[in-house]
Amino acid sequence: MDAIDVIRAKRDGHALSNEQIDWVIDAYTRGAIAEEQMSSLAMAILLNGMSRAEIGRWTAAMIASGERMDFSSLSRPTTDKHSTGGVGDKITLPLAPVVAACGAAVPQLSGRGLGHTGGTLDKLESIPGWRASLSNAEMLDVLESTGAVICAAGSGLAPADRKLYALRDVTGTVESIPLIASSIMSKKIAEGTGALVLDVKVGSGAFMKTVEDARELAETMVAIGTDHGVRTVALLTAMDRPLGRAVGNAVEVAESVEVLAGGGPEDVVELTVRLAREMLDAAGITGKDPADALRDGSAMDVWRRMVAAQGGDPDAPLPQAAETHTITAPSSGVLTRLDAFAVGVAAWRLGAGRARKEDPVSAGAGVICHARPGDKVTEGQPLLTLHADDPARFDRALESLEGGYEIGTTAPDLLPLIIDRLS
Amino acid sequence: MDAIDVIRAKRDGHALSNEQIDWVIDAYTRGAIAEEQMSSLAMAILLNGMSRAEIGRWTAAMIASGERMDFSSLSRPTTDKHSTGGVGDKITLPLAPVVAACGAAVPQLSGRGLGHTGGTLDKLESIPGWRASLSNAEMLDVLESTGAVICAAGSGLAPADRKLYALRDVTGTVESIPLIASSIMSKKIAEGTGALVLDVKVGSGAFMKTVEDARELAETMVAIGTDHGVRTVALLTAMDRPLGRAVGNAVEVAESVEVLAGGGPEDVVELTVRLAREMLDAAGITGKDPADALRDGSAMDVWRRMVAAQGGDPDAPLPQAAETHTITAPSSGVLTRLDAFAVGVAAWRLGAGRARKEDPVSAGAGVICHARPGDKVTEGQPLLTLHADDPARFDRALESLEGGYEIGTTAPDLLPLIIDRLS
Repeated sequence: MDAIDVIRAKRDGHALSNEQIDWVIDAYTRGAIAEEQMSSLAMAILLNGMSRAEIGRWTAAMIASGERMDFSSLSRPTTDKHSTGGVGDKITLPLAPVVAACGAAVPQLSGRGLGHTGGTLDKLESIPGWRASLSNAEMLDVLESTGAVICAAGSGLAPADRKLYALRDVTGTVESIPLIASSIMSKKIAEGTGALVLDVKVGSGAFMKTVEDARELAETMVAIGTDHGVRTVALLTAMDRPLGRAVGNAVEVAESVEVLAGGGPEDVVELTVRLAREMLDAAGITGKDPADALRDGSAMDVWRRMVAAQGGDPDAPLPQAAETHTITAPSSGVLTRLDAFAVGVAAWRLGAGRARKEDPVSAGAGVICHARPGDKVTEGQPLLTLHADDPARFDRALESLEGGYEIGTTAPDLLPLIIDRLS
Repeated sequence: MDAIDVIRAKRDGHALSNEQIDWVIDAYTRGAIAEEQMSSLAMAILLNGMSRAEIGRWTAAMIASGERMDFSSLSRPTTDKHSTGGVGDKITLPLAPVVAACGAAVPQLSGRGLGHTGGTLDKLESIPGWRASLSNAEMLDVLESTGAVICAAGSGLAPADRKLYALRDVTGTVESIPLIASSIMSKKIAEGTGALVLDVKVGSGAFMKTVEDARELAETMVAIGTDHGVRTVALLTAMDRPLGRAVGNAVEVAESVEVLAGGGPEDVVELTVRLAREMLDAAGITGKDPADALRDGSAMDVWRRMVAAQGGDPDAPLPQAAETHTITAPSSGVLTRLDAFAVGVAAWRLGAGRARKEDPVSAGAGVICHARPGDKVTEGQPLLTLHADDPARFDRALESLEGGYEIGTTAPDLLPLIIDRLS
């Protein structure tokens, strides 16, 4: 087998054989295929596509490149959620405790943020003492004792994907549905969950800008999961505006705690409860209402135990940024638009996100949205508050918000929060 | 400027701007764009193409990445030939002396062979003492004193192309007409010739398998040359069968010397004379018949002086391979097919070519074709003689010749030697 033959086959529009796919992924993981060969193959895949059979095999080969987790020793069924990433998407934080409180085991192996969408681990690391890295034994222990764990994926899971993802990031080959779908699903399947709910975001703040693209990605992932024996459901959800009011790290933890306390923004609560129902259904758990777990404090109990089990102090005050800058409404009317991408970039520039993998993030930086699309606003009222450790960051954040919001007279035409469901 | 933005632009089907092209080529030459980024861009160019304006700018940027030769001090006009490569294509060897004998200066900066087509320098290096590497001053000196020089291109010419060519070779991105055309033309224009004749080969033994592809490549190169002020002409010529009878290194030198002595295979003579006429026309030299230069010994005189000026002994016996194996005609009839690719691969496997850049080649290895397509053959007569230093090489060479020739009853339908001319 020869790398150039495989590249040529895909370049010339042919389907790759199972043998070619297995060989390419294995050889790439071992370093026998050079980065520059894999990147030209990735571009050929991006431009010429892959069939369902090819995508399934590609995913299987990436899973086979590393170890697989085994949760069969747990006393509860496992169920997992993956979001394709959005602005203000802190749903994992309240969701994992809610679902655990209803009787499932929730192993949320998460990542860090890169670009304008934040990372779950970055958010949780704003809790004093909390640590993301657990050994497999520690992870199983937290999971068994609290019902939920949110931690960093070990480097032993799908190492081919890890390597390929870093390569795609610098070679303009990220935006390929077969490669995105196989990347997400290889990690999730290697994590060994029995059931999986996918939250595929749609809109300016999401990776998929249109419902059509999001649907294609969702269908592809559901097919991969199903082919691998994982009960997989996907929701398409709105990401034209930020989710909730808080965008950043500590500010999103604070908002999540509000939700766990029975309050919080309506959309965050609605999406948390809906995803929890899907996760419980997929895990075969019936007769439990996740909304009850928010009302009766049982989800909060899980949260506190889960945070504490990973070294965090759930009662410690969260870090706050030293500086704030408030944008006020330039006129009275209805907030007709608050663009998720603009707010995401602003939070990123304020320090909540990183430009390069090795950059640190600011725990306190971010944006608070005082008004949300559809809200009435009065001239001069606070619209957005920017938080940063360094006031020099406000200028570029403000630039990214230019044209990012609009005040009009009639109620805006927004995407419904839950656009569709696929299974 | 950012590499990923440029890759995305081409990936998404947009034309690259002049600024993008200049920046990419410069940054790649300096090492500021990684190999894996350039390879995904090359694949995007291969699949999405480039406009004439983009190709011209790409070529100009590659020329600007290094030094340019200057032949304005010479007493004669310069004219150059480039072949896209074929099996048995030794034409440069008799051609340069013929054209020099007619009054032009012929600076033939040449390459080595990789794969099934041989390299001009590899062939000449079979002459005892001859050396390919000259300083610029030595090159000008040989050119002024003999009228012709065939030597290795200095590493200062179009370094961007050198780097990109090596990358394309291992990333499945060779077969792109914009990239092939700009690669050839950047070197030829940087070499500073005033006139250029392109010999674009067509057929199984050539890079371009069809007349349509060859025509597109020829048109693209003629356009680039014209846009850069070089008088450029292209011939499309046959490469469905080997050119001449000898395929290898020393065996091709010997056949070239036969041509210079007024003999040699008809097709080699015809193509040499035709290309010489085109080169003289393009250089504005009239009233000289290159056929005369072959008949009257003046081309041979230039050859002998040129070889000697580069340390070679034109009278020394050429190396011979230790072992031979002869294939005889299995039946009587007409040789209807002798596939150029099959013969090229056989010669390569016998040791005449190299699999990797760092491999040595055998001076004596190769194939002699005793019969040529259209010739009558008698059962048992010698058809092909294989030459190798090591008899262990015969088996794989014979394999490559299986199905590579046919004996029938009627005259074959061959491509005309000169298929078309473009200017």
